[in-house]
Amino acid sequence: MVTLLTDFGLEDEYVGLVKGVILRVNPSAQIVDLCHEVPPGDVSKANWLLRWSWGYSPGGTVHVVVVDPGVGSSRKILCLDHQGHRFLAPDNGVLSSVLAGISRPRLYAVANRRYALKTISHTFHGRDLFAPAAGHLSRGLAPYRLGPRVTTFRRLALPAVKKNAHALEGRVIHLDRFGNAVTNLPAEEVKRLARRGPLRVLVKGIRPLKIQSSYSSVSQGDPLALVGSRDLLEIAVSRGSAHRKLRLQVGDPILLVVQGSPPLVPSDETT
Amino acid sequence: MVTLLTDFGLEDEYVGLVKGVILRVNPSAQIVDLCHEVPPGDVSKANWLLRWSWGYSPGGTVHVVVVDPGVGSSRKILCLDHQGHRFLAPDNGVLSSVLAGISRPRLYAVANRRYALKTISHTFHGRDLFAPAAGHLSRGLAPYRLGPRVTTFRRLALPAVKKNAHALEGRVIHLDRFGNAVTNLPAEEVKRLARRGPLRVLVKGIRPLKIQSSYSSVSQGDPLALVGSRDLLEIAVSRGSAHRKLRLQVGDPILLVVQGSPPLVPSDETT
Amino acid sequence: MVTLLTDFGLEDEYVGLVKGVILRVNPSAQIVDLCHEVPPGDVSKANWLLRWSWGYSPGGTVHVVVVDPGVGSSRKILCLDHQGHRFLAPDNGVLSSVLAGISRPRLYAVANRRYALKTISHTFHGRDLFAPAAGHLSRGLAPYRLGPRVTTFRRLALPAVKKNAHALEGRVIHLDRFGNAVTNLPAEEVKRLARRGPLRVLVKGIRPLKIQSSYSSVSQGDPLALVGSRDLLEIAVSRGSAHRKLRLQVGDPILLVVQGSPPLVPSDETT
Repeated sequence: MVTLLTDFGLEDEYVGLVKGVILRVNPSAQIVDLCHEVPPGDVSKANWLLRWSWGYSPGGTVHVVVVDPGVGSSRKILCLDHQGHRFLAPDNGVLSSVLAGISRPRLYAVANRRYALKTISHTFHGRDLFAPAAGHLSRGLAPYRLGPRVTTFRRLALPAVKKNAHALEGRVIHLDRFGNAVTNLPAEEVKRLARRGPLRVLVKGIRPLKIQSSYSSVSQGDPLALVGSRDLLEIAVSRGSAHRKLRLQVGDPILLVVQGSPPLVPSDETT
Repeated sequence: MVTLLTDFGLEDEYVGLVKGVILRVNPSAQIVDLCHEVPPGDVSKANWLLRWSWGYSPGGTVHVVVVDPGVGSSRKILCLDHQGHRFLAPDNGVLSSVLAGISRPRLYAVANRRYALKTISHTFHGRDLFAPAAGHLSRGLAPYRLGPRVTTFRRLALPAVKKNAHALEGRVIHLDRFGNAVTNLPAEEVKRLARRGPLRVLVKGIRPLKIQSSYSSVSQGDPLALVGSRDLLEIAVSRGSAHRKLRLQVGDPILLVVQGSPPLVPSDETT
Repeated sequence: MVTLLTDFGLEDEYVGLVKGVILRVNPSAQIVDLCHEVPPGDVSKANWLLRWSWGYSPGGTVHVVVVDPGVGSSRKILCLDHQGHRFLAPDNGVLSSVLAGISRPRLYAVANRRYALKTISHTFHGRDLFAPAAGHLSRGLAPYRLGPRVTTFRRLALPAVKKNAHALEGRVIHLDRFGNAVTNLPAEEVKRLARRGPLRVLVKGIRPLKIQSSYSSVSQGDPLALVGSRDLLEIAVSRGSAHRKLRLQVGDPILLVVQGSPPLVPSDETT
């Protein structure tokens, strides 16, 4: 299986060409579109979508990430070999969250022209380099055959979680199509804090929200907080849009506090 | 084969995750996107898209419908076994039109955790329950293995067709991407009425329309009525949009009359 | 493999139905979406997308093009057999660029009802005629079985390239999702002219642009010209949109001149 995560959109021929080249190399590849609607060059968003997705794919999957505003520059193309999954991505930080949990990643630079198209453009490496390499990897090519081992790579400056004994402070990192606002506050940190007392979520000056179990736990049109499908705290509006109704944006701070605790913003102790 | 009909859109990772989980269970599944651009929670639109589509799939197809604003509530997930096709959908009326033609439907509640992911979120049953169940069904699992037989289910209040000897009254039930307005007036009723005399379609105060055989039967920019690919009467504009030009909306009444007949609105006799 | 290029969009059931019918005929078909977001009836855009794409598919691929504003009229459906690829398209010029390079094309009219659905609508030949024919072709059906040989066909009036010893004049023929403006000036003509001296690209009264090797060759936000992945000259803005920043539109003239040459617009000598 090969997954594709790009900012190509669906109005041009780009995604179709990547698939055509993969299938020329491996006619029996199962290709799954993870997402092609990443806004042009939004490496941070692609980083999160990949983080939340790759673990649901079968072992042996090749994950191709082409959100690549530096195409044609000297930036490397990386191949990561991790837990039976292979990742192909430009060295621009888009693998940051995947790499965060790996102490000594098996990373390679994609350099071997044997696994590329004969003519390589300066503007569409998705077709000319990523696709043929993905086709070969999906047929079993060992990642080290693509190029030399790499030990340094670029990381994104991702927003930190601040915490103290009574509170957590995070940020909105993603708005989905339904207008749900996904934060970077992990379920396990929320659980840890919940042992200190009932929790309240403070969002943009609206009345504090309780943490609910599902969207249907409150009346239609009411805001709520809940732990969503990514094991992260989300702010939502039941059968509505937190993005539109609460005007939440990526980057907005979200404060989680033990009810009745002193109104102190968390220190800079980060995870 | 597995078809997917959701309101997930294509800007998040949701559709990709559903496919990844299906392929983990059944690596040789043929997955076809029926539509993912159903507006969030629009159960009625999903009902029609499914009605017009399922019969064109090969026997043995599993149809997965996840337009599910009640996810996480106590609403059931249903599995319908009908004419060699299997349908997975929330019990919110989205199967209404499919079920309308079946006297004693073989319906089951999806309850067996054996055919679900180990961890089930409260917000994304598409990934955690529908996808693994679809994977197993596509490998031949018998529907009764998913859970107990169900005899009651929710139905949508769909717009009725009113008729008398000289006229039919229906409504616009769908606007497609081209701006064609699909009504709920079936071809066979139109044919029946046509035996009484030449027909005219009355739409929003514009001059009565004749029923044509194709979009090209009138000049570019002119409105027309015709029986479309769903065997329903459609209102269209040749190489244009009835939605924009005639300001047609879902729910607008459409009257079909035998020319020269008394201008009586049909009685409440419905089909 | 079967590729699909349509103006169906993704908000209706149309694409899903085409795939369902193909898979009914050939359950092991590999179907690749080339593009479904061609604006309704934009035959010219579909012509270009196909031109730039078909050569990247494996031999034996069936290319299905349904941008068909004349559906239901007397327009023919064509099957082209070329270099091991098969093309199914309405006879409305959408194959112009593919056919341009072929002296005696093996073209057939799709007429044999044996390879169609039993009921053929007047509005959705994609489902009723193109899809079953594509399914059969992908299983190896010989194109001549679909219908009689055809020797005349419609061609689009595509914009010409004008040239003289010192200059080339072309037009913007495509704007991609990133706002890159693709012209009809081919790389080989650009190279030929470059032998006469350093080149400058004149675009809408902005200062003359040099031809760069990649988007990253200039500072972020600056305009540039380069030979893109289609082997055509493109106008772009580094990490930005030439469409928005330079207000470039399809049809805008683009002039390429040898620096210091007399400011003469190319004659009407066309290629």
